[in-house]
Amino acid sequence: MEDTPIEALQYGVTEGYAPLREHLLGYMKKKHRVGTENDDILITSGAQQVMDLLTKTLLNEGDTVLCEAPSFIGSLNTFRSYRAKLVGIPMEEDGMDMACLEKALETEENVKYLYTIPNFQNPSGITMSFEKRKKVYELCQKHGVMILEDNPYGDLRFAGEDVPSIKSLDTEGIVMYAGSFSKVVSPGMRVGYAIGPKAVLQKMVVCKQGEDVHSNMWAQIVCHRFMTGFDYEAHLQNLRDIYSRKSAVLLSAMEEHFRPLITWSHFEGGLFAWCTLPEGTDMLGFVKRAMERKACVVPGTAFLTDETEPCRSFRINFSTPTDEQLREGVKILGETAKAM
Amino acid sequence: MEDTPIEALQYGVTEGYAPLREHLLGYMKKKHRVGTENDDILITSGAQQVMDLLTKTLLNEGDTVLCEAPSFIGSLNTFRSYRAKLVGIPMEEDGMDMACLEKALETEENVKYLYTIPNFQNPSGITMSFEKRKKVYELCQKHGVMILEDNPYGDLRFAGEDVPSIKSLDTEGIVMYAGSFSKVVSPGMRVGYAIGPKAVLQKMVVCKQGEDVHSNMWAQIVCHRFMTGFDYEAHLQNLRDIYSRKSAVLLSAMEEHFRPLITWSHFEGGLFAWCTLPEGTDMLGFVKRAMERKACVVPGTAFLTDETEPCRSFRINFSTPTDEQLREGVKILGETAKAM
Repeated sequence: MEDTPIEALQYGVTEGYAPLREHLLGYMKKKHRVGTENDDILITSGAQQVMDLLTKTLLNEGDTVLCEAPSFIGSLNTFRSYRAKLVGIPMEEDGMDMACLEKALETEENVKYLYTIPNFQNPSGITMSFEKRKKVYELCQKHGVMILEDNPYGDLRFAGEDVPSIKSLDTEGIVMYAGSFSKVVSPGMRVGYAIGPKAVLQKMVVCKQGEDVHSNMWAQIVCHRFMTGFDYEAHLQNLRDIYSRKSAVLLSAMEEHFRPLITWSHFEGGLFAWCTLPEGTDMLGFVKRAMERKACVVPGTAFLTDETEPCRSFRINFSTPTDEQLREGVKILGETAKAM
Repeated sequence: MEDTPIEALQYGVTEGYAPLREHLLGYMKKKHRVGTENDDILITSGAQQVMDLLTKTLLNEGDTVLCEAPSFIGSLNTFRSYRAKLVGIPMEEDGMDMACLEKALETEENVKYLYTIPNFQNPSGITMSFEKRKKVYELCQKHGVMILEDNPYGDLRFAGEDVPSIKSLDTEGIVMYAGSFSKVVSPGMRVGYAIGPKAVLQKMVVCKQGEDVHSNMWAQIVCHRFMTGFDYEAHLQNLRDIYSRKSAVLLSAMEEHFRPLITWSHFEGGLFAWCTLPEGTDMLGFVKRAMERKACVVPGTAFLTDETEPCRSFRINFSTPTDEQLREGVKILGETAKAM
């Protein structure tokens, strides 16, 4: 506001604040090998808008979107709002079931893209193995289907080794990469970005023009300053340290209160734990009873392409609660499961 | 940032920052009689998003939108992005031609809403008379068609008397009112709002959730503080004084350099003058030649529902140029017209 008040307050271009676009392209290329010569970048009003704009650009009513099952409810609802047919590919410990993916690509009609969150997936916490990433790319390329790679949590790894993104394998220009500042700077600022093939991005720019003209300028400038004027890598390390400690609190509480009734998926980063109740348990009843004691979790059905399918899982978010709230909440969840 | 950093940076609700929503509802009700008991308010990422969300909510592919001809190109493109059929109603000095509107309502199929900018319309500068506003409301109500009343310039009246909004006549709940901070606080912040029937707004909230989750929080807080912590009415008066002076500079330059070749529509506020070249003049050639001498205007064809229709008009924006640039620009335009 002091240095560039006019840039912060006046109209900007739809593509986004030029210094942020330029810096991010270089940063993502250098640090994550994301972005090729045929790619460009579009700043969006949160990464949610990437899902919206790509869908608006590629999808006609009734076209198919393949997605992980379970997957992020916000994105699924965006796809639904354009009347997409959602086809879920079941998740395994190392990502989607490849046989199911292959079959879906062979049998489903008018598949426009595959939607995946390869790192610390919301809600399952699962990270896709490098082998599967290569296989996903190969299969989609073979079938002429784009990949929408949503990576809001990638910087929040506190255990294990980074796995290269699918976008880093993109020699053919079939991957649209969605990044976000929501989990590493601030969600209230609504700044995300898409890096992908120029021809597709150009159509997305036209769609964005009709939606909100451009994203909030001040927030884009803050993100640029935050990345270039401060030690951004130290900031990310600080976040990883915080979530590492919180996840340790959660894991130790789950060991104490969940065993042997409730199991959970292995996670090496992100903000979520995906837990599963014993066979025969009424999951929705469990979530309701726990909520009555102020322990709130999201029922797993909310993340399914077909919400009426049976599901014994629920999602814990460990980013916002304090350590004490985490311990107390897990205790209540364990007691609730035992009492059912 | 100092007082409410968490509210400014954390996720907000899709409907918008509660204190801003509450204040705006009261303010618009009290000052403009906009908003009834059956109405609610949604904060959007600029008023452009109101056009987008209402269209997404009401329109199926091929449905018809009635609009003023000419009209704001940004909105027309949003309607087009949902494959609306646009039907333009010709403008007269006091608003749309009522006979044409009536005929369109009677003959066009699947008309979902009428789009109008009743005050200092973009691009024509025309203000719709109160008689026509009543007639528009009556006709649309009779035909079961909603009205999308877009009022970004209403606060910028520097001559004549305020005319009550169409929304102030809305006893039946058929008007969606779009307001904006872009012309009175800052366009780069992207804050607009919709006031309209609860049932429609609820659907628009679902659509917004899938587009950008919610609007930038900091900007919403700034707008709230700006309206409540300072003398907002004095600020609006200050803007009116500025544009009054600028429009006087423009008018006197047009008197000097345009007569008798170029004529212009009467305007009592806003940011635009709508000018018309003599019969037989190549308008696009004129705009191109003027631009070569750095006098930039928008060709009138850009604002038509059918861009291939003949048009001898162009739009001057007098908000951004300095007084000197206005005088010099109008001189170039006048010379260009004479040389053709």
